Amino acid sequence: MEAVCTVSLLDADRLEHAGGLSYLDLLRHRGHGDLPVPDAVVAPASPEEVAEVLRVCVEHDVAVVPFGGGTSVVGGVEALRGPKSAVVALDLAGLGSLVSVDPLSRVAVLQAGITGPEAERLLGEHGFTLGHFPQSFERATIGGFAATRSAGQASSGYGRFEDMVESVRLATPVGEWVVGAAPASAAGPDLKQLVIGSEGQFGVITEVSLRVRPRPYGPRYEGFVVDGWEAGVSLVRSLAQDGVLADITRLSDEHETEVALALAGSKASVVTRYLRFRGVAKPCLVILGWECRSRSATMSSLSGHRVVRLGRAMGASWLHGRYNGPRQRDALLDAGVCVETLETATHWSRVSELRDAVRSALLAELGDAVVMCHISHAYETGASLYFTVLVPRSLEDPVGQWARAKVAASDAISRLGTITHHHAVGRDHQPWLENEIGSIGVDVLRAVKAQLDPTGILNPGKLL
Amino acid sequence: MEAVCTVSLLDADRLEHAGGLSYLDLLRHRGHGDLPVPDAVVAPASPEEVAEVLRVCVEHDVAVVPFGGGTSVVGGVEALRGPKSAVVALDLAGLGSLVSVDPLSRVAVLQAGITGPEAERLLGEHGFTLGHFPQSFERATIGGFAATRSAGQASSGYGRFEDMVESVRLATPVGEWVVGAAPASAAGPDLKQLVIGSEGQFGVITEVSLRVRPRPYGPRYEGFVVDGWEAGVSLVRSLAQDGVLADITRLSDEHETEVALALAGSKASVVTRYLRFRGVAKPCLVILGWECRSRSATMSSLSGHRVVRLGRAMGASWLHGRYNGPRQRDALLDAGVCVETLETATHWSRVSELRDAVRSALLAELGDAVVMCHISHAYETGASLYFTVLVPRSLEDPVGQWARAKVAASDAISRLGTITHHHAVGRDHQPWLENEIGSIGVDVLRAVKAQLDPTGILNPGKLL
Repeated sequence: MEAVCTVSLLDADRLEHAGGLSYLDLLRHRGHGDLPVPDAVVAPASPEEVAEVLRVCVEHDVAVVPFGGGTSVVGGVEALRGPKSAVVALDLAGLGSLVSVDPLSRVAVLQAGITGPEAERLLGEHGFTLGHFPQSFERATIGGFAATRSAGQASSGYGRFEDMVESVRLATPVGEWVVGAAPASAAGPDLKQLVIGSEGQFGVITEVSLRVRPRPYGPRYEGFVVDGWEAGVSLVRSLAQDGVLADITRLSDEHETEVALALAGSKASVVTRYLRFRGVAKPCLVILGWECRSRSATMSSLSGHRVVRLGRAMGASWLHGRYNGPRQRDALLDAGVCVETLETATHWSRVSELRDAVRSALLAELGDAVVMCHISHAYETGASLYFTVLVPRSLEDPVGQWARAKVAASDAISRLGTITHHHAVGRDHQPWLENEIGSIGVDVLRAVKAQLDPTGILNPGKLL
Repeated sequence: MEAVCTVSLLDADRLEHAGGLSYLDLLRHRGHGDLPVPDAVVAPASPEEVAEVLRVCVEHDVAVVPFGGGTSVVGGVEALRGPKSAVVALDLAGLGSLVSVDPLSRVAVLQAGITGPEAERLLGEHGFTLGHFPQSFERATIGGFAATRSAGQASSGYGRFEDMVESVRLATPVGEWVVGAAPASAAGPDLKQLVIGSEGQFGVITEVSLRVRPRPYGPRYEGFVVDGWEAGVSLVRSLAQDGVLADITRLSDEHETEVALALAGSKASVVTRYLRFRGVAKPCLVILGWECRSRSATMSSLSGHRVVRLGRAMGASWLHGRYNGPRQRDALLDAGVCVETLETATHWSRVSELRDAVRSALLAELGDAVVMCHISHAYETGASLYFTVLVPRSLEDPVGQWARAKVAASDAISRLGTITHHHAVGRDHQPWLENEIGSIGVDVLRAVKAQLDPTGILNPGKLL
């Protein structure tokens, strides 16, 4: 292959681009199961070089796996070659520029390889924030956020990533496509929403034009406790339906709350005794954070509910640990713990039924597991549910142990909600996609793929 | 053709389904230019009957034009047969049921043929409103709103129609497709947004699941005046970017304001004198209406701007006439006036340049015309512009007179904004679509069309 940009064949580079960060990915890196490794890592430095790499890969019939931060937890960046004889990881870190800022319109164009922190730094120089803080924030990239329909912890305030996108620049095997022209349009279907969430199937996202906001002045995070899951759901629902959600709105169920309080260390027993004193039988933690929305509007709506305020220390504690999940996983694995997360969303009338169904499915499959759940994103019509599972790792069959639990949980999820609210489909959620979008939906995606990637070099084995 | 449902061959019925309500449509009904008339009007009474009609039309290779309220102003329901030997208008008025209401999730499923007022009546029985009030409200339908990415006068508060849609049920020639599963999802591209705005190309929308809201308690509408267009744009922009827009937010330019004040009759001179007294040199009218959003938030942000309050009478006057535009057009035509509207949207940094460009293009083409403009919908990153044009109708060539003006305006629009913010593409905006979505975008739409409507019976000659 002609070298149109930096190409590495080093084992260390190839291994670093072998899959994402799911529990099964981590196991694979530890020798459990096959670990597909790309034949090379290709690192273009501009949208033009990305286009040139695609041209060369079409010519040589080489599979291409677009690779941003490599934080996929659904097998979205596995180095699968499909029917091709070779596969390269397309590392987009070289696309790292802030292309332009329109301060009046509050629109900024960012290149795809920019990570969360770097985006905040670049925009911060202009007084702006993107406000997109998923748990993968520290490593994930603008292109990855768009390719997977990411949702950040503050999405109740700033919106999901797709809500921020004004336009997308996409390198496809049939040419460059810029999609999205105005803040809103009725010029046919919203093709931007076809590119967002396309998980590298239709092309490589090289630049994204995004709505930005002024950096928050004095953000504030607080902890609250309600008595029982149903009371919490009802509270979050009314905040959402009254239009007074905090930017960050998170409700933990009693199991997650128990763990959170236990982890609070020396303060834990004080808090627990205080809650008992206040007559809270089944504490469920609520974290609210205000960055751009009105705290007083939320607080005035809260007054209609029975809520115990735990104050800003609890909010600060959440803030401090907000990106800890991914960091702690290797240590937990070392300690012999299987740890993974799952997520979904559904309408309010099914939120509790869905939580119970997933919880039961996981417990039935895993036995003595800790299954915790929280609402991470709330909407007027429903909410997301995010599950964290911890269980002693099977020594004989750690891969099978989780694979079976994942199937059980996903079957339960797909009966009552979406198979994924913000983790994307990748390889892991594929078996449930057709149930959600119909065989016609799958055919439509295939038709678009055939149009844009006629030889099928792009990210084989994912999404479709 | 077998009769799977009511079929009418009566001239009166066929004529009633011959095109929409654009100025050129009205001229055609008055004998200027060709008026394509459907060969029959087919009126199914259920989603199943729609599917059956499509099956029969595929079998007999008959073109199908889905027909809701017939209010398209872009040629979206012209009875074109394309390469087919016959064309039927598919009148969806028989799909008139409220299918279900989930009051907890605030989601209602409405059939496609329900008109705006009927939707409000049906939802009102459950205490809800849809909050979708485009100027076509009185006749247009749920299916039409979805098929054209409609935006209502209160879209700053309730959102555009696509923001309200939870899922869509679509009858396609290859089978039924239900798309949309949860309040939000990362399960691949948002295919719902491919169906919304598809203008009958991919299938016939039979049911739409929609987010609803409680009926407003004490809505309030008020008039204000600012001095000059730029001051008004700046005011609306800050309301949008501060997140305190009224549900209805409308800014008229000085030309539209002049006409609005003149039409206010006996009060006009009082208002004009008052504004002169207050030192307003170039009055621009602002109408704000609150239905679900907070008036106090808007008002407190307004206090930072130089604004003259005209009070609730001016708001009531706007409310009274909010659907008058379409009603008055026939009378104006009778009086020898060419009257038509155009609309677009762009980012804030280009709003004024776009207004000037369209205004100049229209005046250059039409000579002594009245060209009025208002911002009808505001977003954080930009706004829509809505133009109303009045000019003495050419006696020799009324069709050519407007056709040339439309081309000039659309050329100007397509350089700086979207070719349509809420009127859709239909037949009239087709020449500018490729400029906006790229040839790749057009190819993608064609690929999806080929997948869902392989024999091309659906709405020939529109969108694509």
